[in-house]
Formats: sequence, structure tokens, C-alpha cells
Amino acid sequence: MPVFTQREKLKTLGYCDVQDITPLAEAMLLKSGMVDGIASVFVPGSTASITTIEFESGAIHDLQKAIQRLVPENAPYEHDKRWQDGNGFSHVRAALMKPGLSVPFHQGRFLLGTWQQLILVDFDNKSRIREIVFQFVGE
Amino acid sequence: MPVFTQREKLKTLGYCDVQDITPLAEAMLLKSGMVDGIASVFVPGSTASITTIEFESGAIHDLQKAIQRLVPENAPYEHDKRWQDGNGFSHVRAALMKPGLSVPFHQGRFLLGTWQQLILVDFDNKSRIREIVFQFVGE
Amino acid sequence: MPVFTQREKLKTLGYCDVQDITPLAEAMLLKSGMVDGIASVFVPGSTASITTIEFESGAIHDLQKAIQRLVPENAPYEHDKRWQDGNGFSHVRAALMKPGLSVPFHQGRFLLGTWQQLILVDFDNKSRIREIVFQFVGE
Repeated sequence: MPVFTQREKLKTLGYCDVQDITPLAEAMLLKSGMVDGIASVFVPGSTASITTIEFESGAIHDLQKAIQRLVPENAPYEHDKRWQDGNGFSHVRAALMKPGLSVPFHQGRFLLGTWQQLILVDFDNKSRIREIVFQFVGE
Repeated sequence: MPVFTQREKLKTLGYCDVQDITPLAEAMLLKSGMVDGIASVFVPGSTASITTIEFESGAIHDLQKAIQRLVPENAPYEHDKRWQDGNGFSHVRAALMKPGLSVPFHQGRFLLGTWQQLILVDFDNKSRIREIVFQFVGE
Repeated sequence: MPVFTQREKLKTLGYCDVQDITPLAEAMLLKSGMVDGIASVFVPGSTASITTIEFESGAIHDLQKAIQRLVPENAPYEHDKRWQDGNGFSHVRAALMKPGLSVPFHQGRFLLGTWQQLILVDFDNKSRIREIVFQFVGE
């Protein structure tokens, strides 16, 4: 099958909550039966992103702190004035970091570095049930 | 046909002009006849980007303001000293935000959130005719 | 659907070293024999990124300066306190800029702009031998 698309639910805490989704991605790749191709990992919604990091508490803290400094939570946002949902900062962060990442896989394995994990970063200001899309195109 | 590539022209205003390209992307997907796969949305050129946002004026304003604060227009840029085209800030913004985004589609629809639109952000310092590439790989 | 995956080694200097990998990508595309599809350009590891820029010394300098300002090298990082490798800033930069980029190709050519090059940015704090993945999916 040349395209395999799977959606998986994940509970997140918001406020820059970072979750390692590598095991889930690996399970989905195994399930797809594919061995070579591109994996598109994508989070539908306007307040979350996918990227990679060395998943250890120090680097995660540093990333969260940098995001907080670059796009502060406690600043005035037009989005909040209009919609009163208080997550203007979440929208800006997600637009800057984008909702997806493509990762090549080869011989049944993602071509990630040894200390590199796929992560979901949830920028929203509340707990959410997120649906992550894992799509594999290849052979 | 497993690959469908289409280029569409779009007039932009520059200076962080944000345009909703979701309807165009949906029309291209329909035209491709494909129902499952990866859409690569890409803007050739060094001064524009593709991302997603909830396309409402508040969030758009917030994004533009954040970009202006993070990479200011009125700062000295080496690019400007050498080429005198005054868009050094545009190049830095575009390199940071990247020219493309991959979006999975399934059963004929992009797997975007309900309030999530595909946008082109033009960082250049003048009006441009941009060519957007919509490429679908799948089935 | 055919998939072609190739890994190529590249020596980098770290500290925001920027290298033009367009010629290498073009050589790989030629080698793949493919003419239409998506190229996934990806750098395994947690301290480097792929993006595009007009590859001229002014714009490169401006990008490096902006990154240094946005995520400073000389700031306290939790990662450094725990692992003593002094590259906390590299991890944050790479997580924000992400390790890959997808570029469409058509009729045997990448759909890049005339003044747009594919670059590897190495954020690490030392010289590295990087392996870049070039993966083509299409026909």
C-alpha cells in the first residue's frame, strides 16, 4: 500500500507541554508495513507543533523557557481581545513553529539521530485531547 | 498519476502580508484527483514562507507584530549594505520560517483543524507576484 | 511508488556554520533518476537544521546574528548543568528551526527560486561530520 494514514489521540496539558511521540510513531510505522519513504507527522489545530529534540528534562526546560521569552504569555494579544479565550500567545507560537514535520524512514527505521526524539509541543492554555496524524508515503 | 504538481500565481503586498491559500490548495487537490497522500505547499524565493494559523484578523495581527519584534525591519543588515535592496529583514525572516509546509490529506480532505488555515506570509518589502507550488504525492 | 534514499557526509564547523548543500542535493536527484516528487532533506541529530536562504555572505551573516540574538550562546541552560557539554543553546536553536525541509521537484529540477539555496546550519559547539539524508519519493 503506497499511503498509510493513521490518527492517534494523546492527552496534553498545554502551556508548552512537551511529549515524546517517538514510540507512537515507531508503532505506527511498524503497523503500516512500509520500510522506505516519508513520514508526515502532523498535529491538526492552530495551537500545537511537532519538532525534534534530545528528550531530556534540561533541554526541554531550555526550549520552554526560550519560547516563553520569545513569545511571552503575558503580553497583549489582539486575538484575546476579540475572542476572550486567552490563548493569543499559543496561536503565535504555533504559527511560528508550524504544525508538522516530515521525517524520512529507511529499512523500517526513522532516520533520526541517536539522541533525537519526535515531540509534540502543545501551546494551548488548557489540557487538550490532541489527534496526531502519522502518514507514511512510500513502499 | 502518483505525483501532481501545479503552480499558481498570487499577488502579495509584502511587509508580512498574510494570505489564506486554503481555498486554492483545496481546488488544486480536487483537480489532482488524489485522495490520500502528502501535499507539499512551497513558495519558491528567499523572502516568503508557508505556515498555518487561525485566519482571523486578531491572530494575524499578533503574528505580524511578533515577527516584527523578533526580526525588526529597522535594524542594520549586511545584506542591505551589499545589495541596497533594503530587504535584509525579509531574508532573515524567511530563512527562519522556511519556504514550505507538508500537509497530509486523507479521503480527499486536508487533515487541518477546523480553525486552521494554510497561509502564505510575504516578507519582502514590495508587492510581488508569487508562484505557489502545490504538489501532491500519493494515490 | 519509487523511493530513493541516500546519505552523504559533510564536515561542519559548528557555531552556526552555514553550508550550501544545493549542489549535493542536485547531484543526488540526478542519481535517483526521478523527475517528479517530494525531496525530504533531513539532518539526523539534535543540533542542526535545514532551511533555505539566498546564499551570499551578507544574508548569511544576518541570519547568524539574528539566531545569536534570539537564542544566545552565553545564557544559562539547564542542559549544560546536567550534561556539561556546553551546547544547550545548540539544542534550543535546532528544536526551534527543525531538522528537515521538504522541497518539491518537477521535470528533474527542484522548484527553488533563482536566488534560493538549500542550506545546512550546524548549531553545535564543535566541528562535526554530519550525515545529510536526501530522500526522493515520486516517479
